[in-house]
Amino acid sequence: MQTLIWKNLTEQQRKAALTRPVISASLNIQQAVEAIREDVLTNGDDALLALSEKFDKVKLDSLVVSKAQIQAASERLSAELKQAIQNAKRNITAFHEAQKPQTVDIETQAGVRCQVVTRPINRVGLYIPGGSAPLFSTVLMLAIPANIAGCKKVVLCSPPPIADEILYTANLCGVETIYQVGGAQAIVAMAYGTQTVAKVDKIFGPGNSFVTEAKRQVSQSVNGAAIDMQAGPSEVLVLADENADPDFVASDLLSQAEHGADSQVILVTPSETLAKQTALAIERQLALLPRKETATKALEHSRIFIAESLEQAVEISNEYAPEHLVVQVENARALLDQLDNAGSIFLGAYSPESMGDYASGTNHVLPTYGYTRTTSSLGLADFSKRMTVQELTPQGFKALAPTVELMASAEQLEAHKQAVSIRLQKLK
Amino acid sequence: MQTLIWKNLTEQQRKAALTRPVISASLNIQQAVEAIREDVLTNGDDALLALSEKFDKVKLDSLVVSKAQIQAASERLSAELKQAIQNAKRNITAFHEAQKPQTVDIETQAGVRCQVVTRPINRVGLYIPGGSAPLFSTVLMLAIPANIAGCKKVVLCSPPPIADEILYTANLCGVETIYQVGGAQAIVAMAYGTQTVAKVDKIFGPGNSFVTEAKRQVSQSVNGAAIDMQAGPSEVLVLADENADPDFVASDLLSQAEHGADSQVILVTPSETLAKQTALAIERQLALLPRKETATKALEHSRIFIAESLEQAVEISNEYAPEHLVVQVENARALLDQLDNAGSIFLGAYSPESMGDYASGTNHVLPTYGYTRTTSSLGLADFSKRMTVQELTPQGFKALAPTVELMASAEQLEAHKQAVSIRLQKLK
Repeated sequence: MQTLIWKNLTEQQRKAALTRPVISASLNIQQAVEAIREDVLTNGDDALLALSEKFDKVKLDSLVVSKAQIQAASERLSAELKQAIQNAKRNITAFHEAQKPQTVDIETQAGVRCQVVTRPINRVGLYIPGGSAPLFSTVLMLAIPANIAGCKKVVLCSPPPIADEILYTANLCGVETIYQVGGAQAIVAMAYGTQTVAKVDKIFGPGNSFVTEAKRQVSQSVNGAAIDMQAGPSEVLVLADENADPDFVASDLLSQAEHGADSQVILVTPSETLAKQTALAIERQLALLPRKETATKALEHSRIFIAESLEQAVEISNEYAPEHLVVQVENARALLDQLDNAGSIFLGAYSPESMGDYASGTNHVLPTYGYTRTTSSLGLADFSKRMTVQELTPQGFKALAPTVELMASAEQLEAHKQAVSIRLQKLK
Repeated sequence: MQTLIWKNLTEQQRKAALTRPVISASLNIQQAVEAIREDVLTNGDDALLALSEKFDKVKLDSLVVSKAQIQAASERLSAELKQAIQNAKRNITAFHEAQKPQTVDIETQAGVRCQVVTRPINRVGLYIPGGSAPLFSTVLMLAIPANIAGCKKVVLCSPPPIADEILYTANLCGVETIYQVGGAQAIVAMAYGTQTVAKVDKIFGPGNSFVTEAKRQVSQSVNGAAIDMQAGPSEVLVLADENADPDFVASDLLSQAEHGADSQVILVTPSETLAKQTALAIERQLALLPRKETATKALEHSRIFIAESLEQAVEISNEYAPEHLVVQVENARALLDQLDNAGSIFLGAYSPESMGDYASGTNHVLPTYGYTRTTSSLGLADFSKRMTVQELTPQGFKALAPTVELMASAEQLEAHKQAVSIRLQKLK
């Protein structure tokens, strides 16, 4: 990890030091995904079965996971893990229930009633990647708010063979149908529908570069589907002062670094001592990690910044706009009002990122890559949409009519004015 | 306007009848916008001045509109129009103030505090098209929520010469700086910044196909800017029964049709009588409209659907998913719970679309093209972002630690587990 002293950097060096590595799907990936899209649109289920055989080396009898398979998966899991998943579910449910929108229903003037009405997105599709580590925690983060929002259809795709933990969690959280299909083909199938896979309105969830590119493509297509957010590599910024425990700081940086070689982890501190001690703690802890190789690669493009003050450290964080922001300073909460542009904030020594990743209750699907400047962390609102409603009484209409007639005339929209004038005449 | 009897249509004919005309930027437009982007990125203000001379035929001394120009514009406007704009501002302000988010701050379990914190998007750019009709109403719809949200920087671009109404309204609504620059070059300038034009985080507002394509391009670029929503042609669906006044229905259809030749207007009714009377009323009213030619073109690809029942009419509306939904049936409010997938809903005979377009209080920036299935009508939330916060006490941490350790282990993320275990050890 490179250590940089902020005050010694020029404006341009500062900018460069906070710049994320470029990500963009190569032309190869774009074209491969386009080919898969054509294939699935043309051949439907047959394409999905063939692609699963090709990419996942699995020959499937059915795209749908049976109730018996789900039951068997549940029986294979330990009671302790199932209890842990249920604990997490309870906290995540509580926090997302608390996000139910308030009623907006007012008279803007006498006889002019305006409302915001929130409705669930009808059909949602959840994508969970496969691979060695089964990301069942992401099932919790997607299926729980989908159900609280009241989405009428909640389906899930994951590459075969699907891990027991994923099947168990999906079933626990009320997912209606689980399809054992992964990759770009799963995204295309959910966006447009096949004989077996239900078409959905919006697709949620992480994935590799093919999945990300497929989500981009279907979201740009009018008959495709909306998506949760643009995805980039995961990242953490730890803001720490001299009171922080270097072991804690190091463990938070490493828990992000183990996610992937492209993860970015950043420490910003006004304390040179803490910076040095953290670097040493990282060395010690890294040696013991199974994912040491991945974490080492991530650390290569990660940085420690020495700030002149805590205020400057906050400025650096706000400028970087991290996905995860861990704050290990004395009285962390006092800093909250100054913190901006973060996906999720972890206050104090005993709020490591892991807590939010799994079970504190907050959602771990967060904007990355600086999108926290404009994009919200995933929440109940993402599974709903807001419509506005207005209703005018004849009296309310009459009172507001002259205003609208004048404005419509000034915009040279005569038919807009006429829709008012015609009604006014009948009211006289 | 074509009249179709729903029950006589096959599944496929129904689908085709509800399909919108394809919109997609031609390769020419894409390339033209790319060239403009290159030009502005390379030449900054000089490019903006040259492009204004080329496209708008205006030679500018300054890109920024001066305070004196704004003052002069205000003095040229009638007191009546200024009062009307202020009335609209009052209602729009009231409705968007009512959207301020509630506090979300709970303990999901003892010692585990989770919050949602809402923060303004720092810098926003508003785009207002030029042309013969000055769309100052859109200034109200964008600048008012930007200010209520607390955006620190609110700037506006519009092609020169900017109409007095736009300058007056922007100033009234607290826009900090008005740039007299339009088209794709304005979008690029706000997305990346030039010597004079401030870089913003998110761009809002309508525009022609070059502006729409420029918004698409900058939103796909990591260093660009977020955008409000994908734009399509404007549309209205009127749901009416035999009690509706055909003159009112016709006037609402025409007020949408005059927007542009690509606008789509749809009437769905269980009453053949109303359908016939409305068609006649359209003929009568159309003859008197200044924008008759535009409206006639829009009507060519617009449709009347005869449904078997009001329930079926509602189904058709939910399937089409209109931007504007005008409901002129007996007891319109009773239908609200069944209505879905609409941008804004207008209930009853005295709630024409014009009211919401200008002054009822609701926002007239709405998703089009079927995006109402997943996208919200523009509101205060679009000028803000939500961050989550968690803070665990040592006791709260201790209680939740075993859950997180178990889950992290099951996901084979050992460093995530270690971040918990290291803290647990120090707590003992």
